[in-house]
Amino acid sequence: MDSTMCSGCLKDKDLKEAIQVIFLDVPKPILGQWNFDSQILLKALNKHIKDPIKIPLYILKKLPYVLREKDFKVWVVLGKKEREYEILEIFSEKPSEILGVAIDLGSTTIAFYFYDFIKKEVLKKFSITNPQIEIGEDILTRLHFARKKEKLEYVNRITIDAINKELRSVKDKIYYITVCGNTVMSHFLTGLPVNYIFLEPYVPCTNWYDLLEAKELGLEAHLLAKVFIFPSAGTYFGGDIIAGLYFSEIYKKEDGFYFFIDVGTNAEVVLGNKDFLLVCSGAAGPALEGGILECGCQAKEGAIERVEIDILTKKIEYKTIGNKTPIGICGSGIIQLIAQMFINGLLSFEGKFQKESFPERFKKINDELAFIVAFPEETAMGNYIYIKEREVKNFLRSKGAMFTILTLLCEKIGITFKDINTFYLAGSFGNKIDVDSAVTLGMLPEEALSKTIGVGNAAGEGALKFLKKADFEEIRSILGNITYIELNREPKFMEIFTGAQFVPNVNLELFPKVRKKLEGKVCLK
Amino acid sequence: MDSTMCSGCLKDKDLKEAIQVIFLDVPKPILGQWNFDSQILLKALNKHIKDPIKIPLYILKKLPYVLREKDFKVWVVLGKKEREYEILEIFSEKPSEILGVAIDLGSTTIAFYFYDFIKKEVLKKFSITNPQIEIGEDILTRLHFARKKEKLEYVNRITIDAINKELRSVKDKIYYITVCGNTVMSHFLTGLPVNYIFLEPYVPCTNWYDLLEAKELGLEAHLLAKVFIFPSAGTYFGGDIIAGLYFSEIYKKEDGFYFFIDVGTNAEVVLGNKDFLLVCSGAAGPALEGGILECGCQAKEGAIERVEIDILTKKIEYKTIGNKTPIGICGSGIIQLIAQMFINGLLSFEGKFQKESFPERFKKINDELAFIVAFPEETAMGNYIYIKEREVKNFLRSKGAMFTILTLLCEKIGITFKDINTFYLAGSFGNKIDVDSAVTLGMLPEEALSKTIGVGNAAGEGALKFLKKADFEEIRSILGNITYIELNREPKFMEIFTGAQFVPNVNLELFPKVRKKLEGKVCLK
Repeated sequence: MDSTMCSGCLKDKDLKEAIQVIFLDVPKPILGQWNFDSQILLKALNKHIKDPIKIPLYILKKLPYVLREKDFKVWVVLGKKEREYEILEIFSEKPSEILGVAIDLGSTTIAFYFYDFIKKEVLKKFSITNPQIEIGEDILTRLHFARKKEKLEYVNRITIDAINKELRSVKDKIYYITVCGNTVMSHFLTGLPVNYIFLEPYVPCTNWYDLLEAKELGLEAHLLAKVFIFPSAGTYFGGDIIAGLYFSEIYKKEDGFYFFIDVGTNAEVVLGNKDFLLVCSGAAGPALEGGILECGCQAKEGAIERVEIDILTKKIEYKTIGNKTPIGICGSGIIQLIAQMFINGLLSFEGKFQKESFPERFKKINDELAFIVAFPEETAMGNYIYIKEREVKNFLRSKGAMFTILTLLCEKIGITFKDINTFYLAGSFGNKIDVDSAVTLGMLPEEALSKTIGVGNAAGEGALKFLKKADFEEIRSILGNITYIELNREPKFMEIFTGAQFVPNVNLELFPKVRKKLEGKVCLK
Repeated sequence: MDSTMCSGCLKDKDLKEAIQVIFLDVPKPILGQWNFDSQILLKALNKHIKDPIKIPLYILKKLPYVLREKDFKVWVVLGKKEREYEILEIFSEKPSEILGVAIDLGSTTIAFYFYDFIKKEVLKKFSITNPQIEIGEDILTRLHFARKKEKLEYVNRITIDAINKELRSVKDKIYYITVCGNTVMSHFLTGLPVNYIFLEPYVPCTNWYDLLEAKELGLEAHLLAKVFIFPSAGTYFGGDIIAGLYFSEIYKKEDGFYFFIDVGTNAEVVLGNKDFLLVCSGAAGPALEGGILECGCQAKEGAIERVEIDILTKKIEYKTIGNKTPIGICGSGIIQLIAQMFINGLLSFEGKFQKESFPERFKKINDELAFIVAFPEETAMGNYIYIKEREVKNFLRSKGAMFTILTLLCEKIGITFKDINTFYLAGSFGNKIDVDSAVTLGMLPEEALSKTIGVGNAAGEGALKFLKKADFEEIRSILGNITYIELNREPKFMEIFTGAQFVPNVNLELFPKVRKKLEGKVCLK
């Protein structure tokens, strides 16, 4: 049996996988040839792997027996480290499953991808709620909570426990874990002090995590399993965004310029290509995601993700995720809702509600004017689902900030939106966003209409990609290429931002298509 | 305070030490500069160390606090690994002692060297008895004993326990441990299976040990302390010999050819220089060391290490180690004893005892003829100290084998003893050996008379050297340069060996100086 004859064994294209499962027909030791078991194994392995290979004691202790079980035919599980490989397991029979787990450690949900290195496929993916929510919805509350050592250890423990619960049933088969999370999530995962993150000058403990052992984190996996945590580029530019960038590969693009826009709890925008990565973050904020709306909710079952208003027939049609009875509106629903209100004359240029043509949908709730999307009899909880005028104003500030950032980043390097090759939209609603609505509202420029690609949970996909291409060097080079810009301090920021809070913009010439659409429908006030 | 101002901090010449203690005045983080504690630390360190530096979780967890204890002034303890450095500790005050321990794990004794990386000096050195002796004096007995897993674990445990007893009192200050031992000792230390070492084709588990953690071996040292175990080149060419070679540096010599001769429980001979290392081992055996003589003993207090016979005055004078009452004869004493017997006509050319001129010193013991070195009233135990004719014959076989090996190794590469630059004599009696006696007996060629350097416990010194120059690459290159030769199988071996069992040799022309000395003293039989 030749070492190239097996299915599931190493092929050239797999050479970068975090885990490699290699079949070896090890030449047997011969009398008088100064053989060592480790030596003949490495010699056989070196035909596949040229890099240094570490054999840990755990493997050495079983090596002589495993080699002789099936006449020196073995399956070796190799883990890729930054500067060497390590033998993580050795079998005398072909293993059925060799798993890697990619984890997107969000502050709200934790997403898991279970990948099989033998079948080369994702076996399952799912999300759970981040248990830290019991401490507080927002990160600042959790940071304050974790100032004391024992409290930090508590946050660390509940996080690890929640992850372990999902790993436990297959733990012995898990050899590699990749995790991406924002800077604070990564600190909580590793139990690193967060005390100086919220004190001036706002210094996190670390940006880079050397490859860790699952056991030193307390993660339930194979004894020698490795954990790669995506690095941060800044306090507000965490491993989740680095993972997203890694997935988008805009850092490899040779032609033109690319936007990578991640709208999650924060909004991070990256403009770049293979030569540079210009980064701005934190300015847009959670208003775009829907999290802070009274009727806002995560993009889960029952969330309204599509809304259409027909002012002529006085009908509002919506679609929920999973076609369930509605429980609230998620980010993509909110954008379309506000855009539809504007197109149908229910929202003015300045963001004021216009009750006149659809009065039965407007109602004061707790003394504030709200637009009703669903009446109590339609909803799961029997309550109104609505958006308030004040909430729309907040949204317009956020979308205005987003447009301002996009504009200023282009100006920084002397290009216009026409020079943008692709807008990658990531984040909790990156895939679902109605680009038409986003452009109608002036959140994205009109150039985005034909050039936008939704990349969904780019962070999670990036973590998964690292299982398939464990290229530490590439991650380091992304980090090295990033330049951070504080745009809020630019004098021009306020000037553009002020006009960008109108719908779509105070300068309608920037949005000729929106203008044309409006001319056919309602009068500009 | 500048980082060059401290004593005990890194200088260029120290760059290769296994442990480096570096003072850093870390630039403080500045608002708006995207600082991370790990990042500013590494930046400061990179002025001293260009290689990659790993910061383990243990350090990261304390880093923010230690940095701020004394205004970002810190002492960093760095450990050298094969492909990177690792931060092992960080202090806000200058540490008083940072220790490394070099251990020569002999099958009989374990020698310790405690080295202080701050003072740059050996604080103490001493030996203890290898506790494995309770299982059996010789290695084969121990190998058989350790065939079963639980027995192997027992041998491993008593070995580790014995070492720990010596480390315990300063364990928190120990950051690096180097160990050299023969192939079996290294397996026992690491708990690796030895089952196939004594079964054909005699395959040990491993030759190379990747740098280990002290804690994974159960050694009592700093939490992150590293352990380097010298590799083996062959079953009978272990880490002790590699360490000895490393100390002798014959692998660096550019001019001429060098012998490295280690006579311990086995005898290993290396001939080489910077271009090659030709190795032969195991042939001479323990007869040279004295271990298998009825009155033989280790080179310890009370061991007779020098003997002089004056046949005219009928006096035998001896000197013991520590000038104690004699307990036995050690290796160097045996060589001189046999040489003195020969010179004084008490031993024939063929190795037969010649009673005639000193009959009161010859006596039958258990039916075998013996030469009395000390009478019962002179000795510690009240017994005779003697050497038997049969034992001398055994010795002559061993010394004959040694001379044969030296001769054949030279012939292999087409040189003669005249081309040898230096004979390095290592091993338990390398320092003490009376070269004149060894030449008189024909164990070493006459060229050795003026060219021999005793390097004492070269193995232990090699282990110590690795603390000061942790050059993994050099050790790998020594291993790579070694060519092993099985001389016993050469047809010429028996021819030379037969003649070399005479004293000094059947071919007296090889030993003109010995011949001259004999002509003035006694008749050649």
